[in-house]
Amino acid sequence: MCKKKCQVFSSLKTVCLSGVLMMPVIGVAADSPPDVEWQVGPRTVPVPAGASAMIQKTLAEGGQPSIQARLSEIPSSDEAARALVAKRDKKNSEKAQALAKRMNVKVEEDTIKGVKVFWMTPDEIAPEFQNSLFVQIHGGAYVVGAGMASTPGGIVVANTAKIKAMSIDYRMPPDHPFPAAVDDVVAVYKQLLKKYSHKKIAIGGGSAGGGLSLASVHKMKALGLKTPAAIIAGTPWADLTKTSDSLYTLEGIDRALVTYDGPLAAAAQAYANGHDMKDPLISPVYGDFSDFPPTHLVTGTRDLFLSDTARTHRALRKAGAIADLTVFEGISHGEHLSIFGSPESQEYLAEVAEFLKRYLN
Amino acid sequence: MCKKKCQVFSSLKTVCLSGVLMMPVIGVAADSPPDVEWQVGPRTVPVPAGASAMIQKTLAEGGQPSIQARLSEIPSSDEAARALVAKRDKKNSEKAQALAKRMNVKVEEDTIKGVKVFWMTPDEIAPEFQNSLFVQIHGGAYVVGAGMASTPGGIVVANTAKIKAMSIDYRMPPDHPFPAAVDDVVAVYKQLLKKYSHKKIAIGGGSAGGGLSLASVHKMKALGLKTPAAIIAGTPWADLTKTSDSLYTLEGIDRALVTYDGPLAAAAQAYANGHDMKDPLISPVYGDFSDFPPTHLVTGTRDLFLSDTARTHRALRKAGAIADLTVFEGISHGEHLSIFGSPESQEYLAEVAEFLKRYLN
Repeated sequence: MCKKKCQVFSSLKTVCLSGVLMMPVIGVAADSPPDVEWQVGPRTVPVPAGASAMIQKTLAEGGQPSIQARLSEIPSSDEAARALVAKRDKKNSEKAQALAKRMNVKVEEDTIKGVKVFWMTPDEIAPEFQNSLFVQIHGGAYVVGAGMASTPGGIVVANTAKIKAMSIDYRMPPDHPFPAAVDDVVAVYKQLLKKYSHKKIAIGGGSAGGGLSLASVHKMKALGLKTPAAIIAGTPWADLTKTSDSLYTLEGIDRALVTYDGPLAAAAQAYANGHDMKDPLISPVYGDFSDFPPTHLVTGTRDLFLSDTARTHRALRKAGAIADLTVFEGISHGEHLSIFGSPESQEYLAEVAEFLKRYLN
Repeated sequence: MCKKKCQVFSSLKTVCLSGVLMMPVIGVAADSPPDVEWQVGPRTVPVPAGASAMIQKTLAEGGQPSIQARLSEIPSSDEAARALVAKRDKKNSEKAQALAKRMNVKVEEDTIKGVKVFWMTPDEIAPEFQNSLFVQIHGGAYVVGAGMASTPGGIVVANTAKIKAMSIDYRMPPDHPFPAAVDDVVAVYKQLLKKYSHKKIAIGGGSAGGGLSLASVHKMKALGLKTPAAIIAGTPWADLTKTSDSLYTLEGIDRALVTYDGPLAAAAQAYANGHDMKDPLISPVYGDFSDFPPTHLVTGTRDLFLSDTARTHRALRKAGAIADLTVFEGISHGEHLSIFGSPESQEYLAEVAEFLKRYLN
């Protein structure tokens, strides 16, 4: 990549922060992308009128994300990271408790093969899901979302699809980097196969949870296990390297992730812990998707992981798998669920329920 | 919208071209989106390593699009527009002739109800398509693509899916603005219904052709006609107003369209010719999609019409229709076909053939 950064503002004038104007340089190395960069000028982005009124309102009131502010959010040490995560998870655990109560979902802690899990039982289970299970893999960039904070994604699916769910509280860095998370998911899944038919199990989650779901299915295939009947990959972090197009095109526009650089890149480093980030068990988009189960994917027009999601969708299709992609207008990373109660979240959850009904039978 | 434009560059420094720094202003009018704009700083966009090597090469060699250059491309008069279009269509007609020859597709001109059409017969028709027809609606922002220049999209589908196709050379502005194009498509379709079962007809095209396909189906519904069995909407211009999120987020990044302002906005004005641009027969995304046929949609992560395509997909789904969305990595508007021979175009055409096989039977 070019080392000097210059900005050409809509061709009106040229400003170069480094003092040297760089023209695009073409230098194609074998197997490397061409070393050409565009310096794309600033743009004026209004609230998206095609999004729901609720999304529009939160965008108008929430303020513009700051890349600089996000870059400064990297914890200075493992200790600082642990404290930050503990504080955040405590707050989100309390929210999850309230959510479970409001949705009449009973949450029970359990341990399977040494891995902490949470069973989530809705007050009503649909007739077609009497023997089914949705295995929820939480997000949080592989560094946050432990304990009860891992359950909200499962609670809402349990409630809306009327299906029993389980959240796997997989181990995370800094203490337990890759492959601990994959190992935990697969260890629990193997035990679940003793109780459930693989045709009655779906696995899924958002962000890192979507990526880990896909990576775990790669691992299941490698171990010769029967794979789940469906995957719900919500804006999956399918590539931990800074490769996807939308990491560049939508930087500063996705108000949830804001930028790859900063906490996200730090989390990727902490998780991979020196392993090749293009290992399909870390970045599942690089894996072989043949014989993958039907996979439901969702992203948004402002999602930094738009490309991760779209690339995964294409990789699945190319391998002959059933893959269904939805892109919500004006939605940043994860907001198809995180702005809960929006029309978009309701549409999304209804589609997930339909998808599970279709493929768990 | 805010009248003054200011740029905040990654929070590093503030520049205001108009001399006045505007903070986001919240002023929500009834039924209007909140009057808030983000000024998003410049970004450095490399060649997308997740796209095919062929797409990467064309991006590296093609140079960065210039918004200013595109803005200057508006013809100064109707006469100038006619001359420009005639020149472009002549060149593209010659290319289409060569394409038809190379693909062994026989092209025959005909007139149906006063509308010029082109029949396209491949050298081999698949057994399942013996009585089927793909009706190709060309793109070109409702202002270019007349005559033989209207045929390439039909030629490649005829060749790869092994299906007979027809291109409707609908009338266009400045001489024939809306509703001439819709009227022509529907007039031809009504005649086709005398020869073909509606269950054996698919309709589709790219850009304006995708939008016009969708608008024509709205019109067919309004007339009580039986609708086609499938729609192939390639990055449809489904909203001629400047509403879609990606018109803002991807401005200057889509190297095909570059910006909504300029020739595209001028074409929208010329086509609508004073009619309400939110009329579903002009901007089909605003229509009622109930009872719509299965629709295949494609776009790219750099496509200015990413949002038009995604919003159409959601509108179809909300109405209960079958809708299938694909987003190609690093692809600008229309490049899923226009960079012909790329792996992306091959994947796309194979999917279109599959989609037609599934729904024309």
